[in-house]
Amino acid sequence: MSFSADDHRFMARAIELAAKGRFTTSPNPNVGAVLVHDGVVVGEGYHHQAGGPHAEVVALQQAAELARGADCYVTLEPCSHYGRTPPCAEALIKAGVRRVVMAMQDPNPQVAGRGVALLQAAGIQVQSGLMASSARALNAGFLSRMEQQRPFVRLKLAASLDGKTALRNGASQWITSKEARADVQWQRAQSCAVLSTAETVLRDGARLTLRPEQASAAITPLQDGSYRQPLRIVLDRQQRLTGNEPLFQQAGPIVLVYPAGSAALALAGARTLLVPCSEDGYFELAALMLALAQDGINSIWVEAGARLAGSLMRAQLVDEFWLYQAPKLLGDQARGLVDGPEFTDLTQAYALQWQDIRQLGPDVRFIATVQGRG
Amino acid sequence: MSFSADDHRFMARAIELAAKGRFTTSPNPNVGAVLVHDGVVVGEGYHHQAGGPHAEVVALQQAAELARGADCYVTLEPCSHYGRTPPCAEALIKAGVRRVVMAMQDPNPQVAGRGVALLQAAGIQVQSGLMASSARALNAGFLSRMEQQRPFVRLKLAASLDGKTALRNGASQWITSKEARADVQWQRAQSCAVLSTAETVLRDGARLTLRPEQASAAITPLQDGSYRQPLRIVLDRQQRLTGNEPLFQQAGPIVLVYPAGSAALALAGARTLLVPCSEDGYFELAALMLALAQDGINSIWVEAGARLAGSLMRAQLVDEFWLYQAPKLLGDQARGLVDGPEFTDLTQAYALQWQDIRQLGPDVRFIATVQGRG
Repeated sequence: MSFSADDHRFMARAIELAAKGRFTTSPNPNVGAVLVHDGVVVGEGYHHQAGGPHAEVVALQQAAELARGADCYVTLEPCSHYGRTPPCAEALIKAGVRRVVMAMQDPNPQVAGRGVALLQAAGIQVQSGLMASSARALNAGFLSRMEQQRPFVRLKLAASLDGKTALRNGASQWITSKEARADVQWQRAQSCAVLSTAETVLRDGARLTLRPEQASAAITPLQDGSYRQPLRIVLDRQQRLTGNEPLFQQAGPIVLVYPAGSAALALAGARTLLVPCSEDGYFELAALMLALAQDGINSIWVEAGARLAGSLMRAQLVDEFWLYQAPKLLGDQARGLVDGPEFTDLTQAYALQWQDIRQLGPDVRFIATVQGRG
Repeated sequence: MSFSADDHRFMARAIELAAKGRFTTSPNPNVGAVLVHDGVVVGEGYHHQAGGPHAEVVALQQAAELARGADCYVTLEPCSHYGRTPPCAEALIKAGVRRVVMAMQDPNPQVAGRGVALLQAAGIQVQSGLMASSARALNAGFLSRMEQQRPFVRLKLAASLDGKTALRNGASQWITSKEARADVQWQRAQSCAVLSTAETVLRDGARLTLRPEQASAAITPLQDGSYRQPLRIVLDRQQRLTGNEPLFQQAGPIVLVYPAGSAALALAGARTLLVPCSEDGYFELAALMLALAQDGINSIWVEAGARLAGSLMRAQLVDEFWLYQAPKLLGDQARGLVDGPEFTDLTQAYALQWQDIRQLGPDVRFIATVQGRG
């Protein structure tokens, strides 16, 4: 089974369309679809937000009668079940499409292949796997939740060139530039949730909200014109937050995480989540992640200090390490990047793999995947 | 006074020629020259090593009779004094060149303009300042010695992404890659001297020599086929070196720096330099730099630890900060980049300005100039 240059071109367009939903589809995946009749694009669509029409349906509506005999390019296997909307596989059958080319199967192993089977049973030619890695990259979070039952975790840190996130006295506003902070806004806008700690909320007055006007590029609003706020998850082991912090004065959902067994405080409309602690009194982060995945959280953007960074690294819960590095030196008395026990051999170091390195204003942004020890 | 596109083209070629001498001219500057007759290049030359012919003379020899009526493009003002070779200004006059275009004046204020005056007195048209900043970049070291009476100092550090140069137990071989280390060899080859400490020599078994076969690109040898070794300068405040370290088993000049007033040890053929110490017992680094400049050292490549790095930064003696950063995390127990006192306000941070950021194998190399506090 091979794909033509046109196949690639139309699938690339479907992927481009899918990405338009990246600020709004949570907890749903990003999906794009293109309908092509006799080599001409007759319909395009993407999934915009949960409860709204799926990509294929938008494209079919646009194509109307031209959908009959058309080829459908779609970034994810068409759904086969009745959810908030009818199954897309049925809609494609009903519209009379000739062929369906999809980038990848449904990542949920319990339903993968059902959409394909429905289409094939109706005599539609189905091809799969075109530009699969690009399609997977669109939905790193959704795939992580489906395949590993935990959110995709991006650990964000901002530091000087010598790896310092704050002075010894805690001063950190601001080490990095306006441009770097605008990029952080843009990344928050694409994350289901932002994870932080009471320490960061108290020390920095962190609000952790999306402020679209401060972002580095335009963010698509929800259909009602408002902006989707990421869920703010704050670890508060010692129940230090009072509800009067700036965090609570910003609209948007908040989950406060307390140790299992503690008397959870209901603060200023925030939800609470009880998570077991290990013997040393720290949260079982794997249990936290499982609970968040079950709550529909695909992707988490972590903004905290060296302690949570170190704990997440040790628990092997960091998928991507994001570092904004400013052209400054703060010296060895300042606070470091990643806490943890002493390494006695260089093979114990965490090995990273660069994904992207670029300049943002005066700063440099590194994105690296975590390879484990090596 | 304006320059044509051809003028730029020929000067660019002269600069390219000058750079060919960058492994061998120390302590002389890099100079390149191009002779152009009726729009055709008739002679090219560069200064290869001290005692050998100057760039203009090489170009004149190549041009022979065609030098008469030619334009000479040269990256530095032609010399006017008898040194180891006769003055180039006289040679240009004698050859009958019509015009001399130079990138910059002689940086030595005591002789600047004399070459120009000689040429003009002989009726030769002289223009100056074409591509001056590129010409200055060729000779950052020589210019620093002439203009500031101290060498140009490049502080090199190799670290993990979290700014760690070694584990707490000192292990550091190797944090960065073969490619990064090959680049370090290439940079040593272009430096008049390598500066280090007894601590680094003892702990890492550092030899600090140029090993041309390990360098990232070809290095030009001296005329006798050997490779110029950078002078190795080792600070040994407590006279800990014995002469039996690997440092001494490699050919090439060594200067051991001892506190003024100490009984200098003559170890294994190394020279000694006595430098005053401040009240805290550490070397007066400014005095060291002055002495090295007086000894003809244009440029210094520093390879040491966080302590010397911090001392050089505090003394405002770092011109360029070179950091090779590996995609690893060593954690906060590991050793940091730059020692020093606690900063209590972010305005105390050292401000850097990127000059170059690039990937070398798996690592990233940053070159930044030091802007002082900011």
